[in-house]
Amino acid sequence: MTITIKAFLMMAISIFFVSTQLHAGESEQEVWRDVSAERLMVMELALEKGNVQVVFELAPQFAANHVQHFKALAKKGHYDGNKFYRVIDGFVAQAGPDEGEEGSAKTEKMLAMESEWPFDKSPAFSLIQNKDLFADKTGFIGGFAVAANESENKAWLAHCPGVLAMARGNGKNTATSHFYITNGQAPRYLDRIMTIFGRVVYGMQHVQAITRTAVLEGEQAVDPKDYTAIVSMTLMSDLPREQQLKLQIEDTESQAFIDKIADRRARPHEFFYKKPPPVLDVCQVPVRTRLVE
Amino acid sequence: MTITIKAFLMMAISIFFVSTQLHAGESEQEVWRDVSAERLMVMELALEKGNVQVVFELAPQFAANHVQHFKALAKKGHYDGNKFYRVIDGFVAQAGPDEGEEGSAKTEKMLAMESEWPFDKSPAFSLIQNKDLFADKTGFIGGFAVAANESENKAWLAHCPGVLAMARGNGKNTATSHFYITNGQAPRYLDRIMTIFGRVVYGMQHVQAITRTAVLEGEQAVDPKDYTAIVSMTLMSDLPREQQLKLQIEDTESQAFIDKIADRRARPHEFFYKKPPPVLDVCQVPVRTRLVE
Repeated sequence: MTITIKAFLMMAISIFFVSTQLHAGESEQEVWRDVSAERLMVMELALEKGNVQVVFELAPQFAANHVQHFKALAKKGHYDGNKFYRVIDGFVAQAGPDEGEEGSAKTEKMLAMESEWPFDKSPAFSLIQNKDLFADKTGFIGGFAVAANESENKAWLAHCPGVLAMARGNGKNTATSHFYITNGQAPRYLDRIMTIFGRVVYGMQHVQAITRTAVLEGEQAVDPKDYTAIVSMTLMSDLPREQQLKLQIEDTESQAFIDKIADRRARPHEFFYKKPPPVLDVCQVPVRTRLVE
Repeated sequence: MTITIKAFLMMAISIFFVSTQLHAGESEQEVWRDVSAERLMVMELALEKGNVQVVFELAPQFAANHVQHFKALAKKGHYDGNKFYRVIDGFVAQAGPDEGEEGSAKTEKMLAMESEWPFDKSPAFSLIQNKDLFADKTGFIGGFAVAANESENKAWLAHCPGVLAMARGNGKNTATSHFYITNGQAPRYLDRIMTIFGRVVYGMQHVQAITRTAVLEGEQAVDPKDYTAIVSMTLMSDLPREQQLKLQIEDTESQAFIDKIADRRARPHEFFYKKPPPVLDVCQVPVRTRLVE
């Protein structure tokens, strides 16, 4: 009898604790959108456990020049063999050609910042929150977390975990080809001064497995030959048909998503014996991906 | 000549982009505190690449009963061989004895929540931010991120990435031995309704390498035999002397830390060609650990 109660309790812990808190439940109807293979970039990584794929959804609607540039570089093989040379747990994984190598001279172009746009030119978004710490409003457009200040008439992509953005020097328009992926608590202070041009929609756990190059004081440095390498960077549509992954992403403008957000804010489940404040951190709202076929 | 400029630019990107944004610079004087080996719990994990160590700093000053209970369970070998059976990228890694196994019956005790305390009984903390999305104030006490509402006279540990907390059933006081580690954007909505009793101070990259058990719709489920196992859970002071790691942690009450925070808020480096809002997310402020000897 004790065992039965215990077993039930354990089940309760595993089922309720996780499922009610990550998303609203399996019974809800999600609405999914297809993503064109021309908008998905596949990065193959050489991890210790073998080669894996990470997929970025690119964001030409927000950073057209960066996306075009990144696609062109990928097509030329610019990133093949590049290393993640600056990887800091809880912050970013940054990659690009080694300074000493020919790769660094492969690109000459400096990119003009594409980090914000007029709010009144912005497509309508699914509102998540008024007044978070960094913006007057946050929400989603096409699965991307967006922040905005109406008073300034500006909107921008928010630095949530898993965004893909260009690194740069000190100058505003000095990005070339080095990029980073955020891998920890959202560094929102980088919003509007870096160009985000995509986000991880598949394989974030592999991004989290990239070898950290930043070690603690007192630890041995990591040998650069052990840095995680990019095997290839290929647009999904350039892969042989049989290797292409078909992904769908939750439609963040659908009524189903908006309902899910309302539910998430209210936390109606009895697990919440005391309700949290009715606020949402846009970077803590999952937008799901699924594999089809 | 082009190469020289290019090489300089690349150097600028790697040096400035990362170092200025993660912390204020190597030249600053950190002040470190020792952590007693009786407050450090060492979790050995069996990862695909081999066994690794994760170290938690326990928080008896905030959750005395949970810490005592956790230490007693560890000493009994309760966690040895347990699996991380509910691991969701960007949310939590949760472990505990399998329902079917004898392990689940090893503990009968249900723990009373220890998730908040009277703010006026709180030690003074290093203030990080007034009015973030979830609290009137945030700051640090002894390296732990704390949030507080003065009007309610309550303070609590914040669910930043890397906290160690007890899972529970639906009832308030139903925690037994299953625990979770947060591995993504801070799920602050769990503040005050879960008991946080420690945080990862060493090996967070290994927590991030724990096998995800939650897969995407359309992906194959992970075989439970491939779940990441806990090899052992041992108090640092119970390890043979020669195996003990001596860790120091930034003293978050030191003037050096307070100065670093002021610098972080102001972002004086020229990299910030436009200054971000002068606000700080307590969960995005790194508190460093170092290995000594």
